[in-house]
Amino acid sequence: MTAPLPTSTNGAITVLAGGIGAARFLAGLLATVEAERVTAIYNVGDDFEWHGLHVSPDIDSITYTLAGVQGALGWGIEGDTFVTLEALRDLGGDAWFNIGDRDLATHLRRTALLRGGATLAEATSELARARGLRLTMLPVTNDPHPTVVVTDEGELDFQVYFVQRRAADAVRAVRFPRAAVARPAPGVIEALRDAEVLVIAPSNPLVSIDPLLAVPGVRQAIEASSARRVAISPIIGGAAVKGPAAGMLRSMGHEVSAFGVARIYRDLIDVFVLDEVDRALAPAVEALGLAVVVTDTMMTPPERGHALAATVLEAARA
Amino acid sequence: MTAPLPTSTNGAITVLAGGIGAARFLAGLLATVEAERVTAIYNVGDDFEWHGLHVSPDIDSITYTLAGVQGALGWGIEGDTFVTLEALRDLGGDAWFNIGDRDLATHLRRTALLRGGATLAEATSELARARGLRLTMLPVTNDPHPTVVVTDEGELDFQVYFVQRRAADAVRAVRFPRAAVARPAPGVIEALRDAEVLVIAPSNPLVSIDPLLAVPGVRQAIEASSARRVAISPIIGGAAVKGPAAGMLRSMGHEVSAFGVARIYRDLIDVFVLDEVDRALAPAVEALGLAVVVTDTMMTPPERGHALAATVLEAARA
Repeated sequence: MTAPLPTSTNGAITVLAGGIGAARFLAGLLATVEAERVTAIYNVGDDFEWHGLHVSPDIDSITYTLAGVQGALGWGIEGDTFVTLEALRDLGGDAWFNIGDRDLATHLRRTALLRGGATLAEATSELARARGLRLTMLPVTNDPHPTVVVTDEGELDFQVYFVQRRAADAVRAVRFPRAAVARPAPGVIEALRDAEVLVIAPSNPLVSIDPLLAVPGVRQAIEASSARRVAISPIIGGAAVKGPAAGMLRSMGHEVSAFGVARIYRDLIDVFVLDEVDRALAPAVEALGLAVVVTDTMMTPPERGHALAATVLEAARA
Repeated sequence: MTAPLPTSTNGAITVLAGGIGAARFLAGLLATVEAERVTAIYNVGDDFEWHGLHVSPDIDSITYTLAGVQGALGWGIEGDTFVTLEALRDLGGDAWFNIGDRDLATHLRRTALLRGGATLAEATSELARARGLRLTMLPVTNDPHPTVVVTDEGELDFQVYFVQRRAADAVRAVRFPRAAVARPAPGVIEALRDAEVLVIAPSNPLVSIDPLLAVPGVRQAIEASSARRVAISPIIGGAAVKGPAAGMLRSMGHEVSAFGVARIYRDLIDVFVLDEVDRALAPAVEALGLAVVVTDTMMTPPERGHALAATVLEAARA
């Protein structure tokens, strides 16, 4: 009997998502399967208040990427202008976080929806619909659940560490001070428990995926899930494709490699996907008790995410 | 003995201010006397929350006018762009209130200052300083003190009445639901009590000046003030120079004329300034027990506000 094509998988696919790496993987996935089958559970640890507005960097990266308007640098909207930000700087306001004029509309709309009583999940859904997206996107929680980075300079809000200080501080620990009282958003536990395929996107394990796992019930739902569980390494050839993952893994005592990431996820997954350049690490990952898929995991240009998504689904069926 | 020139007045001048009419009068005043002598006490009844941001239309009209950046239509910033507003409309957001990209920076900065613990007075002062202004501008209160307009369609928030519905409803009454618990901002009572000259700007008596008088202690401070108290008619030849004052006076049972306005203010002022075209009304106003000054009160072009300010100061010295 021939194995069915990966696209014939008809169950639900749930993706644990950070920012741009997850966004590109999801774009590939949506080129492969119907959007109605896909649920992204995304990180809210990077969310912060900017001049009274609720900014959600991870979900915006995902939404903008899927809508085809993502800025080339991995944030904001392509071709955006910065009239308001410049005027804000002239008024003496904090302008270290780059928010363009079109991008700003997203934060205004989200804030208006939240002030009007919507949950973060509802606001996200409304913004996704306005951009024509049909997948389900759930914040891991509707509650405040910020990521705090512990450095030699003290504890820093995530965006202060990441943007204002350009991720230059050695990270000693990552804290989720509100995790204990955060409740999974409606649908999150079900999407983890009932999925046919569960994917940990190639996102930062420490500040994108760990905040998801820190919400009570999430880790247990993944452990108990009957889904085929697959993680994709965000580390290729000992470096992060984007962002501070490599330095952060190192300063927090992890091995900076696909193997180091596999070891972090070993109790949560069945299959680990690593890049061709890391083929030599496959035996060590297999020795952790995981199935290994070696493939091309770089998603530049973004079209290569289609092939990665198809490979991941195929691996999940194997 | 020759009367001193009006510019030799060296005491404090306090102006009760609404929006654009007050802004133009203040611009004229600042061309006539040192900014340090001038305090504007401004209306916050038009303030509202826009997508989570604190918008203060009256003080922004004043600040933008005095800084020389006021839009030609009487709102916003001249030459502003509307990239964010268009994007917000595309996302399905409320976009009936025109906020340009540069204007938006003001609301973001104000909101950030307020969220950081500043009072509205402190935020206003910071924004004024950032634009190089040296007069004192005090909100009548730092507390929420919205104006509600009673129409045949029910009670409307002021901006819903004024902008969204284009002031098309007949106004049956104006309410200040929070007035009883609003406290005068620090310095307001002193500025009214200790001024040498107190001016009621040519603003809408019902929705610009009345909200000031509704704050406990303000009316009493004006009544008890030793200042020479002068009001300038916002009604010229039976019409408002700008805004809904004429229709509002009519539907609320007032005479739509300079005389009608003088009658509203009669217990609060010593001198009433009306336009040349209303010269015939002077005897009736004098019969109210007021001194009358007849002059050119139109402030278009804005330079004509200089002459008006000089005339008002002269009248106050008489």
